[in-house]
Amino acid sequence: MSDKLFERVALIGIGLIGSSLARVIRRDMPETRIIACARRAETLDTVRRLNLADETTDDPAAAADGADLVVLATPLSAYREVAMRVAPSLRQGAIVTDVGSVKEQVVKDIKPLIPEGVHFVPGHPVAGTEHSGPESGFPELFHDRWCILTPTPDTAPEAVEKVTRLWQGAGMRVTQMAADHHDKVLAVTSHLPHLIAYTIVGTATDLADDLKSEVIAFSAGGFRDFTRIAASDPIMWRDIFLANREAVLEIVQRFTEDLTALQRAIRWGEADTLEARFTKTRSIRRSIIEAKQA
Amino acid sequence: MSDKLFERVALIGIGLIGSSLARVIRRDMPETRIIACARRAETLDTVRRLNLADETTDDPAAAADGADLVVLATPLSAYREVAMRVAPSLRQGAIVTDVGSVKEQVVKDIKPLIPEGVHFVPGHPVAGTEHSGPESGFPELFHDRWCILTPTPDTAPEAVEKVTRLWQGAGMRVTQMAADHHDKVLAVTSHLPHLIAYTIVGTATDLADDLKSEVIAFSAGGFRDFTRIAASDPIMWRDIFLANREAVLEIVQRFTEDLTALQRAIRWGEADTLEARFTKTRSIRRSIIEAKQA
Repeated sequence: MSDKLFERVALIGIGLIGSSLARVIRRDMPETRIIACARRAETLDTVRRLNLADETTDDPAAAADGADLVVLATPLSAYREVAMRVAPSLRQGAIVTDVGSVKEQVVKDIKPLIPEGVHFVPGHPVAGTEHSGPESGFPELFHDRWCILTPTPDTAPEAVEKVTRLWQGAGMRVTQMAADHHDKVLAVTSHLPHLIAYTIVGTATDLADDLKSEVIAFSAGGFRDFTRIAASDPIMWRDIFLANREAVLEIVQRFTEDLTALQRAIRWGEADTLEARFTKTRSIRRSIIEAKQA
Repeated sequence: MSDKLFERVALIGIGLIGSSLARVIRRDMPETRIIACARRAETLDTVRRLNLADETTDDPAAAADGADLVVLATPLSAYREVAMRVAPSLRQGAIVTDVGSVKEQVVKDIKPLIPEGVHFVPGHPVAGTEHSGPESGFPELFHDRWCILTPTPDTAPEAVEKVTRLWQGAGMRVTQMAADHHDKVLAVTSHLPHLIAYTIVGTATDLADDLKSEVIAFSAGGFRDFTRIAASDPIMWRDIFLANREAVLEIVQRFTEDLTALQRAIRWGEADTLEARFTKTRSIRRSIIEAKQA
């Protein structure tokens, strides 16, 4: 990453994504000042202990004051309040970007709050683990993953370019698409898988205690992979499902229809239907391996 | 593993599990003769090329002739025919065991076909990857995983003991339970997760081509973990769902009810319901990590 892409970066929210970005900036742009903002004193203690920022504050307005880049990295439900609080302290020419997993709602909520002369570049680095908090971040989190930016037609190209360089410097491949299209794609690749994983682990949680302890012991048969996904941050995911409600409900509906069809094939012993379906799904795995996303 | 637990082991079916067991025997019991049986000439070529067996044949009866251990490791749908063909050549005192993922149906189908004086020890080494075929096996596959034996009250304890030592030698923790209980536990830990993964990848497969290529590119958000599971052997899984029909349909029903409840919470914006549910599922992950099965 070129030195001094930004002079002063305010990270509003410093969990897995925010702290990983802080580590990248520390590594590649040592002259850039980082201001970390979080609500909880405990989080800010951790940030100081790990030396992830030059300044820490619980006040978004103070964090954004004088920054040339403000990154919203809180759960989605905090965005509106944060945007309202930072708006008055944003300097002319500053760039506001975000890392949220839903984009249409974000653009709708946040764009009207951004003052004239400030650039808003909605973004989504598609990377993560099941761990949360500033201690879970690491600079390689973004490596070889995609970052999707969803600028509107009136977003200044030079602001998009600077945010692109930021994420490219973190090792990401950066692409652009319309916000509503992003939300449809992510509903399939990320939101549905998480909802399903939360559901199946929930179903197991409700089992009688003796069966449950055996489910834990014998989880290697497939179940444990779901528990990893279902260990992701509850607040963040609550907000994602609510913010991307329509696209999620649409894809859940399709999923349910497909599950019902397989259920029926099992009930009626339709071996050929099952085999044909299970054979077809193999090819997607091959495509993912070819796309180097496995 | 103690030398010469068995003199002559017939592996009927030599895919991921069969070939991994062959590699363990080669490593730890070099004096034991291994006879590999498969239907396809290509598979037997691979077995010879990899030196996984001392003899190869496509005839289960010839493979079992004189063996003191016969391991059924084909897809479940081939079990009955294999058992009928090996029965006449089984020698007195021989042990027949299997590695199938469903146990009640196997006991019901196979036990009546086993001649007097031959021991049948139904078993299930709970281990696997998404890869299949003899070239995919490796001796560490079983390491630290569970093997569940489901002997019936009349199974000779010394036969159970020898099969236990075989799997312990492969690095497994061996336990026993009733066949129907095994099937209920595995329906949750393995069969439902696979059915769900096949479904979700199938749902994505049916998307319009442009959306599908983006789903592949952005699969790192959770989807790709499902594609790995859904790349498992289609024949093997077809057979598992049909053989464990009742337990699978019962747990799918519970899963569907739970998914519908979450769907409704999303539709009506019930943030607290979602958060409570997603918080609860985290504890199962912790239990799995504590049980060293993560």
